[in-house]
Amino acid sequence: MAKGHNHFLTEAHISAIVYGSMAKKIAILGSTGSIGKNALRVIDALGPEYEIVALSANSSVELLAEQARRYQPRFAAITNADFADELRELVGDLSIEILAGPDSLTEIAQLEEVDILLTAIVGAAGLPAVLAAAKCGKTLAIANKEPLVIAGELLMETARKNGSTIVPVDSEHSAIFQAMQAGAPGEVSKIILTGSGGPFRNATSENIQNVTLKEALSHPVWDMGPKITIDSATMVNKALEVIEAHWLFDVPVEKIEVLIHPESIVHSLVEFVDGSLIAQLGNPDMCLPIQYALTYPARVGGIAKRVRLANIGKLTFEKPNSEVFRALPLGYEVARTGGTAAAVFNAANETAVQEFLEGRIKFVNIAELIEYCLNKHNAKTTASLEDLLQADAWARREVLECLKQKVR
Amino acid sequence: MAKGHNHFLTEAHISAIVYGSMAKKIAILGSTGSIGKNALRVIDALGPEYEIVALSANSSVELLAEQARRYQPRFAAITNADFADELRELVGDLSIEILAGPDSLTEIAQLEEVDILLTAIVGAAGLPAVLAAAKCGKTLAIANKEPLVIAGELLMETARKNGSTIVPVDSEHSAIFQAMQAGAPGEVSKIILTGSGGPFRNATSENIQNVTLKEALSHPVWDMGPKITIDSATMVNKALEVIEAHWLFDVPVEKIEVLIHPESIVHSLVEFVDGSLIAQLGNPDMCLPIQYALTYPARVGGIAKRVRLANIGKLTFEKPNSEVFRALPLGYEVARTGGTAAAVFNAANETAVQEFLEGRIKFVNIAELIEYCLNKHNAKTTASLEDLLQADAWARREVLECLKQKVR
Repeated sequence: MAKGHNHFLTEAHISAIVYGSMAKKIAILGSTGSIGKNALRVIDALGPEYEIVALSANSSVELLAEQARRYQPRFAAITNADFADELRELVGDLSIEILAGPDSLTEIAQLEEVDILLTAIVGAAGLPAVLAAAKCGKTLAIANKEPLVIAGELLMETARKNGSTIVPVDSEHSAIFQAMQAGAPGEVSKIILTGSGGPFRNATSENIQNVTLKEALSHPVWDMGPKITIDSATMVNKALEVIEAHWLFDVPVEKIEVLIHPESIVHSLVEFVDGSLIAQLGNPDMCLPIQYALTYPARVGGIAKRVRLANIGKLTFEKPNSEVFRALPLGYEVARTGGTAAAVFNAANETAVQEFLEGRIKFVNIAELIEYCLNKHNAKTTASLEDLLQADAWARREVLECLKQKVR
Repeated sequence: MAKGHNHFLTEAHISAIVYGSMAKKIAILGSTGSIGKNALRVIDALGPEYEIVALSANSSVELLAEQARRYQPRFAAITNADFADELRELVGDLSIEILAGPDSLTEIAQLEEVDILLTAIVGAAGLPAVLAAAKCGKTLAIANKEPLVIAGELLMETARKNGSTIVPVDSEHSAIFQAMQAGAPGEVSKIILTGSGGPFRNATSENIQNVTLKEALSHPVWDMGPKITIDSATMVNKALEVIEAHWLFDVPVEKIEVLIHPESIVHSLVEFVDGSLIAQLGNPDMCLPIQYALTYPARVGGIAKRVRLANIGKLTFEKPNSEVFRALPLGYEVARTGGTAAAVFNAANETAVQEFLEGRIKFVNIAELIEYCLNKHNAKTTASLEDLLQADAWARREVLECLKQKVR
């Protein structure tokens, strides 16, 4: 090589050379959603040691194109193939391989170039990709609840067999994951999942009947996507988290407790056999658990704002109201049943929430529809992926069928 | 051996045979004090895997004799030799070796039979024994603040060189020790020491002037010995803990913060570089940190009562008032100065508290006498054990001298 060429190296070039081989290579499934956008902010701040190799979106083609232009990943996937041509048009000038259709997620999950797969796709859609990544031994940063809810047993077993590390991104499970490091897994006596209680925390069984969509979408603490905001208002969110924690931490459901904590500063706690409680605290900001999942097991400086307890003044705690929030006891029941029950719970909820968001049903109908499906379902206690997907599809149809009949 | 003898084996015999060689052998320095008594309750509950090989007291000869009769240690030490004959009389019928005088503590610390030395002696008296145990590579469960306050640098260096593990027993430092396991030591950005604020938390600079001994001895949360209760009321306690944390966790004093938390449920917190806060919570009960120090790194079931946050309802936090509690900024100053300054701070306080307990000075005089000594002292920045003990003795004389002059 000719001398003198070195002075053409920019800082970015040097970083690329220095970090090139050791950079952590990240794929984000769902980069245009709330978690995905925050993840990109976190990666911006983490610097050149973290490289984005793939991005995906369902139908937000313009934002995906914008992100692709900025981060120049090797792959960009659009799962709704109707938007594939538009995406090709928007980023055709870049050397990015465009993937389209639902299978593109699984394709990304298996890419040799990917070290960490961050999954942030609402609903059951990301499930095959998550399982594929676990089979390839990837590090999985899971931000959506569904993979562990629907296929928790299968996923954890696959991860164990193939040396895949699963790091939760949900603030509660990240808190538990962090707190559990203060003891051995066998020394855990209780997992205490905190929840803000959502916008209807103080509601009665009566006044919960008439809440509006707008009220349900006004979460007091967290700024999240609409589906998760509704799940928080119904406390389906917390029910799903109980199921998720059960599989992720291999803890029986009897040892998992839900605690209402409106300030959302204590993100969850672990009680050990000696009676010691370890808690993780932070501002309600997803950037912290996203970053921890990407840098784990290390911690590095980041963009999350610091908590000042003296300024906050007080933290409050109360028991959840299982009579008003029917989804919570249903969640426990489902976790105890195992098998296909959680897939039904999740799919019935997903479908019902969509109906609610589109103004076709009332808020309280969501839990009612879940209960309706669970009562009608014959749960298989040991379930293959096929069984789970079938139960999922059955529950979706069942919700819509039930609503049609009512309309008649 | 003749057959048939086996049926004479009691459960205790079997336990002794099973656990005999692997039992953890514990010596308690200060077994008749508040911590010592709790430690014995904890060890009772832990069962035959934990064996008491030595007990010590200063002058509480009757209680020591009672404990010796119950636990049958191989050694019992009375540091005030005036009580040696009485002790011999009281337990002469047992096969216990009686040690007497201040050096008996060092003798116990070096015993080959001792695995864990639990030091719970108020004041500077236990210092040589603690250093001797560190030199022998023992596990040190330190319940009194003075060894780390007076000789923190020396002790940590000695422990490092000789493979001695130091596990704190103080509830705050135990909390920090536990919380630090959720990250690497280099990832700690702040240590947040909580304190109840003591009985005068809401006092003004004016009304603190006239508090009585009885008021100062009425701690709102913790049931402790008189010296530590007064230290809590003056916040000298928190000042000593800042210095202790500085050495124990190798964290600069600028990164140590004091936070008032009247409910004393959050025992302290660690903030990591990413902004994540890890806290340890528990009831205000010394049995939990004592047990953790004895079973570390394992956790086992114990007698500490569980915290129920929903029943507690709220936890509050506020900044400490450094204008009313003068000892707190003095403690930070001392920690920054290093060398002999902390020995002077501690000795001046110990002497002043004794004067206050005996009704000879006012509550506010305690901090005044500490400040007086610190102002008069020429701190050596690098200090040998001899320098430290000299500074300690000097400060004690100085306090008494100052009081004599005032009386004239």
